[in-house]
Amino acid sequence: MKILISNDDGIDSPGIAALANEMKKIGEVTVIAPRTEQSAVGHAITMKIPLRITEYYKNGDFFGYAIDGTPADCLKIGIRNILKTRPDIVLSGINNGSNTAINIIYSGTVSAAREAAIMDLPAIAISQTSHDAKDFTYSAKIASELTKQVLKRGLPNGTLLNVNVPNLPEEEIAGILMTKQGKSKWDDIYEERIDPYGKKYYWLTGSLMETDVKLETDQFAIKNNYVSITPIHFDLTDYATYESLNNWQLENLMK
Amino acid sequence: MKILISNDDGIDSPGIAALANEMKKIGEVTVIAPRTEQSAVGHAITMKIPLRITEYYKNGDFFGYAIDGTPADCLKIGIRNILKTRPDIVLSGINNGSNTAINIIYSGTVSAAREAAIMDLPAIAISQTSHDAKDFTYSAKIASELTKQVLKRGLPNGTLLNVNVPNLPEEEIAGILMTKQGKSKWDDIYEERIDPYGKKYYWLTGSLMETDVKLETDQFAIKNNYVSITPIHFDLTDYATYESLNNWQLENLMK
Repeated sequence: MKILISNDDGIDSPGIAALANEMKKIGEVTVIAPRTEQSAVGHAITMKIPLRITEYYKNGDFFGYAIDGTPADCLKIGIRNILKTRPDIVLSGINNGSNTAINIIYSGTVSAAREAAIMDLPAIAISQTSHDAKDFTYSAKIASELTKQVLKRGLPNGTLLNVNVPNLPEEEIAGILMTKQGKSKWDDIYEERIDPYGKKYYWLTGSLMETDVKLETDQFAIKNNYVSITPIHFDLTDYATYESLNNWQLENLMK
Repeated sequence: MKILISNDDGIDSPGIAALANEMKKIGEVTVIAPRTEQSAVGHAITMKIPLRITEYYKNGDFFGYAIDGTPADCLKIGIRNILKTRPDIVLSGINNGSNTAINIIYSGTVSAAREAAIMDLPAIAISQTSHDAKDFTYSAKIASELTKQVLKRGLPNGTLLNVNVPNLPEEEIAGILMTKQGKSKWDDIYEERIDPYGKKYYWLTGSLMETDVKLETDQFAIKNNYVSITPIHFDLTDYATYESLNNWQLENLMK
């Protein structure tokens, strides 16, 4: 089994090392990940500057390929120019910090897996709910078991699994839930500062407004110590509105 | 009527000027756009470096605010720290080049409008199908008429309209169609080159594999000279797969 692993925290992050080490037990792993942290880059791809591929070593051993681009770039150039054959599955993570609700839109971790789904490959994005996570053992185990299930049962082309794991010891995990993307979103605040030359600059801060109150949503599930697994896709059509807009008589726009 | 305009081609692009000039006829326009071109940045947001806001002048007249970030950044900081009140509608464009099918995922133009939809604001992304488009008159007219319709009839919270206009004189436009996101995607090719120091680098090229063959899809509609209007949203849950995954007995993953 050929497994491709990427992330958005960068090739030197502890989460990707934990994931790669666990997956090596069940398959042939290639790591192709951003050279530097790419959090919140969404589904950006690099077109206006060229990419470079660097071999990355960890404690003297070859670990994987570092790309000076985005997570989506890693998938595109990784499969085309490094692997040259299609992997059986793609995993992205283990991310430091959850990717639930509106954060799915901003996440580079999810976008790496989504780029795999665009290529009709099975894909799993996996995140752990703390920016200070140190022990990824349980998340790595979930990733490995879920990989076996996905390869056994299959996923529809274009669908990926977005997995979020509470940053807790295994015995404190409440269970595993299949979920939907929540509606929680950010209350953004730009903190204004003055630079040494008297000019203003602005840092993005803020807090997640947690409006989800059902265990069937990703954000509420992880808040209640459940592992959350959400099937997502990239057909953004709003079908309900598509039907109702046909009453707008848009041809009148031309007159 | 307060109208906020952004784009991903940058504040100095001809498409945003054409859109702003047209919209000034029907409302109070504020332009808040990236200082430099941000094509294909998707829904990236800037967190690890601060943003700056610069007043941008065109032929000696104040034109708008330039942000040294992404299209989504422009919406976030623009509404919070520049406008300080919510606009009645947000328009993004007029983009040079279409944003149909898989390109909706990569597009900065669409992401600016999507960030508005995340804020529960009505929003329209508008693109013209040529990277060399010079005359934006008809696209600007469509944007203006559609703005009136959207404000009259309303859109569901979280839904935006993604509009693509063929790069043709008005008399050659075949009509206006309500469409769904197409399935066409890229056959990526990374062109390998050698730098003056003997190191390899890679340029992303390739061509769109046009697999859409129905006028009800965005890509086939514009190919057949129709204006395409697609309602899209940011709930990525794959509901069909959500139902079927409940048969996976995921609790077994823990054992």
